[in-house]
Amino acid sequence: MGSGQETRVGELLLGRLHDLGVRHIFGVPGDYNMEFLDQIEAFPGIEWVGSCNELNAAYAADGYARLAGIGALVTTFGPGELSAVNGLAGAMAESVPVVSIVGGPTTEIMQRRAAMHHSLGDGDFERWVRIAAEVTVAQTTLTAANADAETARVLRECWLQRRPVYVRIPGDVARQRVAPPARRLDRPVPAPAPDPLDAFTAAAQRLLAEAVRPALLVGHLAMRYGLTGAVNAFVEERNWPAATQSLGRGLLDETRSNFLGIYNGGDSTEPVRQVIEGADALVCVGTKFFDWDGLFSADLDPARIVVVGAASATVAGTTFAPVAPEEAVRRLRDIAPERTVEWPRYLGEQRPPAVLDPDSRAPIRQARLWPAVEELLEPGDIVVPETGTPSFGVATLRLPRGVTCVQPPLWGAIGYATAAAFGAGTAAPERRLVLITGDGSLQQTVQELSRVVATGQRPIIIVVNNGGYTVERAINGPHQHYNDIDNWRYSELLSVFNRHVPCDSYVVGTEGELAQVFGRLRGTPARPTIVEVLADPQDLPAGMPEWGRETASVDYQQAVTRSGWLPWGGLS
Amino acid sequence: MGSGQETRVGELLLGRLHDLGVRHIFGVPGDYNMEFLDQIEAFPGIEWVGSCNELNAAYAADGYARLAGIGALVTTFGPGELSAVNGLAGAMAESVPVVSIVGGPTTEIMQRRAAMHHSLGDGDFERWVRIAAEVTVAQTTLTAANADAETARVLRECWLQRRPVYVRIPGDVARQRVAPPARRLDRPVPAPAPDPLDAFTAAAQRLLAEAVRPALLVGHLAMRYGLTGAVNAFVEERNWPAATQSLGRGLLDETRSNFLGIYNGGDSTEPVRQVIEGADALVCVGTKFFDWDGLFSADLDPARIVVVGAASATVAGTTFAPVAPEEAVRRLRDIAPERTVEWPRYLGEQRPPAVLDPDSRAPIRQARLWPAVEELLEPGDIVVPETGTPSFGVATLRLPRGVTCVQPPLWGAIGYATAAAFGAGTAAPERRLVLITGDGSLQQTVQELSRVVATGQRPIIIVVNNGGYTVERAINGPHQHYNDIDNWRYSELLSVFNRHVPCDSYVVGTEGELAQVFGRLRGTPARPTIVEVLADPQDLPAGMPEWGRETASVDYQQAVTRSGWLPWGGLS
Repeated sequence: MGSGQETRVGELLLGRLHDLGVRHIFGVPGDYNMEFLDQIEAFPGIEWVGSCNELNAAYAADGYARLAGIGALVTTFGPGELSAVNGLAGAMAESVPVVSIVGGPTTEIMQRRAAMHHSLGDGDFERWVRIAAEVTVAQTTLTAANADAETARVLRECWLQRRPVYVRIPGDVARQRVAPPARRLDRPVPAPAPDPLDAFTAAAQRLLAEAVRPALLVGHLAMRYGLTGAVNAFVEERNWPAATQSLGRGLLDETRSNFLGIYNGGDSTEPVRQVIEGADALVCVGTKFFDWDGLFSADLDPARIVVVGAASATVAGTTFAPVAPEEAVRRLRDIAPERTVEWPRYLGEQRPPAVLDPDSRAPIRQARLWPAVEELLEPGDIVVPETGTPSFGVATLRLPRGVTCVQPPLWGAIGYATAAAFGAGTAAPERRLVLITGDGSLQQTVQELSRVVATGQRPIIIVVNNGGYTVERAINGPHQHYNDIDNWRYSELLSVFNRHVPCDSYVVGTEGELAQVFGRLRGTPARPTIVEVLADPQDLPAGMPEWGRETASVDYQQAVTRSGWLPWGGLS
Repeated sequence: MGSGQETRVGELLLGRLHDLGVRHIFGVPGDYNMEFLDQIEAFPGIEWVGSCNELNAAYAADGYARLAGIGALVTTFGPGELSAVNGLAGAMAESVPVVSIVGGPTTEIMQRRAAMHHSLGDGDFERWVRIAAEVTVAQTTLTAANADAETARVLRECWLQRRPVYVRIPGDVARQRVAPPARRLDRPVPAPAPDPLDAFTAAAQRLLAEAVRPALLVGHLAMRYGLTGAVNAFVEERNWPAATQSLGRGLLDETRSNFLGIYNGGDSTEPVRQVIEGADALVCVGTKFFDWDGLFSADLDPARIVVVGAASATVAGTTFAPVAPEEAVRRLRDIAPERTVEWPRYLGEQRPPAVLDPDSRAPIRQARLWPAVEELLEPGDIVVPETGTPSFGVATLRLPRGVTCVQPPLWGAIGYATAAAFGAGTAAPERRLVLITGDGSLQQTVQELSRVVATGQRPIIIVVNNGGYTVERAINGPHQHYNDIDNWRYSELLSVFNRHVPCDSYVVGTEGELAQVFGRLRGTPARPTIVEVLADPQDLPAGMPEWGRETASVDYQQAVTRSGWLPWGGLS
């Protein structure tokens, strides 16, 4: 844009979102946001994607951001934005850059503290901003005068911190004229800070120099900061064994022999635990320890650990900041010694055979289902396993090369998967999408299946129907009423949520039926496909029984039993 | 309970909820709340009612409270409670007493600031409490030591202010032993304060003494404070004309000749506006003026107005506090003069005939639909019209005697109706339930239809399918894409959401079909019944076109055009 031209506040915001990589915006129309929606409809290069409700829009924007790098949603003041709060909190917890744009009342209305619909009628228009401030890292209310500086400020924070931000556009502001920005925003990079980086490198070198059994552990931040290639190259070049936290799943190439599996403290399978806890130097890239991921049971000594975080790096408890994670990994790769000491590599050997018996009339057991899912997955898939039975099941698999795994282990909101899968599929329509959910989770956000079909996606949707919240049954009340839910005809959902697109649906109750249906699913299906898998409510996937007992203890006992050594707040 | 007995913290809370009238608790299990759920399951006199998601649970508790006087829900820390925030904000806006109970991490975990799932992992466990503080009037985190005092304090505030409160039970606390409370909580009454009441009465008497054209206007607080009988008796005895705000709909007996209709400022039909604005003394009981309800256009002079509020009363701008609304209405009824001056009474005479033509093949028009809905309604029904086309349609009707109307005009959240209807039906299963929703609204919270059917409710569900958000089309973008939604097979929803209960479903596209289906619906249907009414996306119910233009002006123009005289914050 020439500097002499005029633009509008809404267009300026859209231009900057486009600079950062936003190509679709999710959301729901509301009376305060429609002039901005008009601007979206008219904006070349950004497409409006309606959502059935605002929570689903937030989940979709989160799923989109995990694929595309950044996501955005638009809601309306009050009921709209508050319905999305949980979704933004999840993005905040898991460091996903999502821009939450809210259409608000006009500047005059807010200044005069008018009693308005969608407010408490008390004239306090900062109330929902205060809520937003708990789940976003920067907030702004735009005016024509501040639009240039404020959009740059909050979007910069969104990108640099990889966390959500909140932008409110009063109803009168979207169309106000402003000068176009002097330059593109693009994806900002932090200012270089050589001194802490050099000091970090020297400290890391002292720790790594003596190491003969080094290992590497990755978490989600390594993905968010685009380190997938660098980390894989690192472990390959230096012959280091590598494990992933559940948060970082999908980053490591799981087909390589140095891939160990998932490390989550005392719940880890062997040899993951043995190799990670036996390391004399452990490099943690973008990790986050929390209760469900080994915080209380990890037998790790911080004195042997290098942690690369979002904006700092730590060696044996000493933190260097600011250190950009890209730079830290580059330096570590330079100084890391090659590992010559062997380690045990037997992941997967103890698994039951993955081949299903097409003639079996036996009910489907979790122990048979998940290896079959592993067979179903193909290189390059996007797999979205819901928190609960599916996340436990997928944790036991070795993923094919290039599979992206979209899941929120820290936030753990059930219902996320269905809407996030829609968002991920919007970001990468060329890739096959496999949503694996449970009946209880699906019921939370089921309506978004409608958008999946209507926008032309052709996912494989696997619904594990075990009559309720089996992940909760594992913790408490295995036979309590409150963990039971209504039994829907899940296989018919796609045809009720649309009138035009033919869909394929299956209900499988035996191993033989499962074998037959899964056997047909090669490549992206010609039609959206839903498979309802009937499962025993009391049959738990591997790892869930132990996890359930530990969670019950942590959640309800007055004192936590700790076997590990990490600080309560985890490693920083 | 004898004072020597022991109880548990969770049971103490349940006992007090029972004292206040709670007989059902809505919600969703989560790993932090299940020991409390065990206590609910075991508690005589309170039933657990699972919800498909937490927003729906909050809406259901709100709908329940509007019928039963108070409602409650249980969610889990983090994702669960945050999904309910919008529903609690609505209860806050519309003064509905809802108790939000959240199962949290243990006391030790929170004290030690552990990195936990369902948190941001930053050790800040007050974050979601700060959010709750924006949408509730009192908050507490229970311990064994404070449970007696704190449950009494927050529940007292909930009842006295008729607004939501927030109670967090750490996981270790629900089962801790405590002494039983010394006495029942019951529904507290404010301490009497004779001086302000006497002064208020004297001031009101001076204003009312000279009045020859007095009139009365009611809002929602009159219902919340149990004044329905007293207000109806007042206007009957004194021969006053009476109108209702949309918030107060259902309070006045609309079959009486002194019922005027709905007053919403310049949007009011005649003679409502003429009689209310022409009054030389206007008594407003529990009213709330806001933009959609006449704030900017009401031609009312505060000098002629008596306002009875939740905890204060105002005469010609002078406020007296504390004054309990029950007492204020009792005094007003004593001192109010009889009205002898006639007023025009022609509500309804200009309506099209309500009788549908069973042979007509004409498409269904809004102008024909709503009179038919009036014919369908029966005395004692609970009617739940969704915000949008249904709320505009129902606003044109005269309700049969004893109809309760559940709707949120101030908060205006679409999606509320479906879940709130479930809550209302839970509170009053003996009454016929009529849910009237639109396609866009239904899609927001559709899953709760599952609970409606599974719990044995047999409502009449009318879905106006006009292909999108017609209420938004009236404001902006009548032909914009973003106001269009996917076209579901709405009539098949009930049979997909359950496998056992037979349901009746209809799709009606012509006036004749509508006549035939509505003609069959007398009394509570034998089965849950859904009627999909096909409607033209551009056909608006009466009042909506003008309202849409005004809303567009208020929402997007830099300066509001005001024709009325009320303060920006409304009357207090």
